[in-house]
Amino acid sequence: MPERARREADFQPELRKNLVTREWVIIAKGRGRRPADFVREGESEVMRVHDDKCPFCPGNEAKTPPEVFAIRDGGRPNSSGWTVRVVPNKFAALRASGSDQVRRVGLHSARDGFGAHEVIIESPDHNKDLWEMELTQIEAVVECYWQRYLAYEARETLQHVLLFRNQGRQAGTSLVHPHSQLIAGPVMPHQLQVELQGGAAYWEYLGRCVYCALIDDEKRSGERVVMETEHFLAVTAFAGKYPFETWILPKRHAIRFPAMNEAEAEDLARVLKDVLGRLAGCLGRPSYNFAIHSAPTAEHNVRAYHWHIEIFPRITTLGGFELGSDIYINVVAPEDAARYLRESDPPS
Amino acid sequence: MPERARREADFQPELRKNLVTREWVIIAKGRGRRPADFVREGESEVMRVHDDKCPFCPGNEAKTPPEVFAIRDGGRPNSSGWTVRVVPNKFAALRASGSDQVRRVGLHSARDGFGAHEVIIESPDHNKDLWEMELTQIEAVVECYWQRYLAYEARETLQHVLLFRNQGRQAGTSLVHPHSQLIAGPVMPHQLQVELQGGAAYWEYLGRCVYCALIDDEKRSGERVVMETEHFLAVTAFAGKYPFETWILPKRHAIRFPAMNEAEAEDLARVLKDVLGRLAGCLGRPSYNFAIHSAPTAEHNVRAYHWHIEIFPRITTLGGFELGSDIYINVVAPEDAARYLRESDPPS
Repeated sequence: MPERARREADFQPELRKNLVTREWVIIAKGRGRRPADFVREGESEVMRVHDDKCPFCPGNEAKTPPEVFAIRDGGRPNSSGWTVRVVPNKFAALRASGSDQVRRVGLHSARDGFGAHEVIIESPDHNKDLWEMELTQIEAVVECYWQRYLAYEARETLQHVLLFRNQGRQAGTSLVHPHSQLIAGPVMPHQLQVELQGGAAYWEYLGRCVYCALIDDEKRSGERVVMETEHFLAVTAFAGKYPFETWILPKRHAIRFPAMNEAEAEDLARVLKDVLGRLAGCLGRPSYNFAIHSAPTAEHNVRAYHWHIEIFPRITTLGGFELGSDIYINVVAPEDAARYLRESDPPS
Repeated sequence: MPERARREADFQPELRKNLVTREWVIIAKGRGRRPADFVREGESEVMRVHDDKCPFCPGNEAKTPPEVFAIRDGGRPNSSGWTVRVVPNKFAALRASGSDQVRRVGLHSARDGFGAHEVIIESPDHNKDLWEMELTQIEAVVECYWQRYLAYEARETLQHVLLFRNQGRQAGTSLVHPHSQLIAGPVMPHQLQVELQGGAAYWEYLGRCVYCALIDDEKRSGERVVMETEHFLAVTAFAGKYPFETWILPKRHAIRFPAMNEAEAEDLARVLKDVLGRLAGCLGRPSYNFAIHSAPTAEHNVRAYHWHIEIFPRITTLGGFELGSDIYINVVAPEDAARYLRESDPPS
């Protein structure tokens, strides 16, 4: 192919369908750039390991609501000496009080914002992203995720538990001290509903889990593989909404995150460290979110679901097309993103 | 109620269901603030009425692809003298070339990014937001929207036309010269599909258009009404995803935007000027998007649809919870937002 034709072909946008949700995205490489083009200069401030004013730093335990869980070597609750510490969110999106009844407001339905909103303070150190921590520290964080899922899964009034992480200002962080959040609510999230329906439909037509099928297919092609361990596969999403959108998929079919065994949990800590480190190296410590997608807590036909983690770097801005159509324009081909990530090391 | 109890009640978050899409949002006023808290200082640069380097300014017509439509008093195509000018987007998300076939990529489906992506240059003036223009200029913009919808609706290979506007950096604008965009594509957007399904289900159960029912209900309560004219009602959305999310609803039931008659089109120009001016005054010229939601171009059972415009101010940042669950946390109660907007004037 002559150079010009190859360039043109490179620029031909492509519509791709998410295998699970059946949502279309546009891959428009013509607007796409190399990873260095996404690096925002001068955004990463140098931070100290301890900040006296930070409510999440050791010694400031009284500045948060009382802890609901902690992994600690010693010390009493709400004193220093902890490895990971969980507290209710002071500005909770959902609260423990409130009724479980739906009420009518004119034509509309509403109900109390009943549920839980917790902050998982991931480390005593103020200034580290998750991947920069020691492996044992990340293992403690994963252990903590597991414990908190279990604590909320059992409650009959709650329909789902979502564990997520906001890193950086573009990703909605207001406090820099490393932390994740958990929100457990009484309604089924639309995103999960669409995934469950997609998984059920795939099972009905093709007799197997769509995520298991995806794992086989991605391993076969290798094009979108970022890294692989004994228990996990990390791939860029074929129809990713965000540039460098990366999914971490457990190889063993399991519908719920807390179905993980100990070996898998330890492996997950390694995978998070590796994949988030690659993203940080490749894109210059970008803002990002991740969320753990796990089956709902209540009884549902969820044989066809498969828990996983979705990571969204926040290096572009959504516009009116995305907000108005729910079709996302992704300016980096996932195959290119995977290649960049495979070749990437964490920042030194 | 004692002051403290009232404050606590104010802070109780509420889950609300979108009447059309059945998606839940969280209204968490506890995190909410007054409009002044959302104003970003020092963001609005003073701009000249003409910028020699801007490809959308008169005299620079050669810097864009050749125009496909214009409203002009005189002059040849691609010269100055125009009122509104439409050109293909140089960095198009979808292109006129390409096949209409779906192809398999492993387990996945993909197809050429076939369609159209146009820029509607709204004014020769470089430095005005839409609401700042003369009413006759906004009428020309609406006329242009109407013409371009009609041009693409007729094409059999296309499934939808979306007209949208990005204002300000937080809303994804790269060029400041006032413009809207149109993307026409060969697939049904997920957002529209969900709205069509919601509309159809409501009609099936309750025998009427859900948007017509909404208009009656909002007029009856008045709580969320921003303004009303002969042909339109502007309300904050009961289950809005974004703070100050505002919908402009045509009172006459019509499934397609181009079904508008001349009197309605002139009225719409007035409504856009008024509503966008109120948002600018209330929130200090915020970034915002709007999109026109209109029935798909191809044959569908769309009796139950009702075109409308949704406006999203971009004054908060989405986090991992929104991205992972599709449940949005809105920090301003829509009733408060409507009251602020009713009391608001455009910036002087």
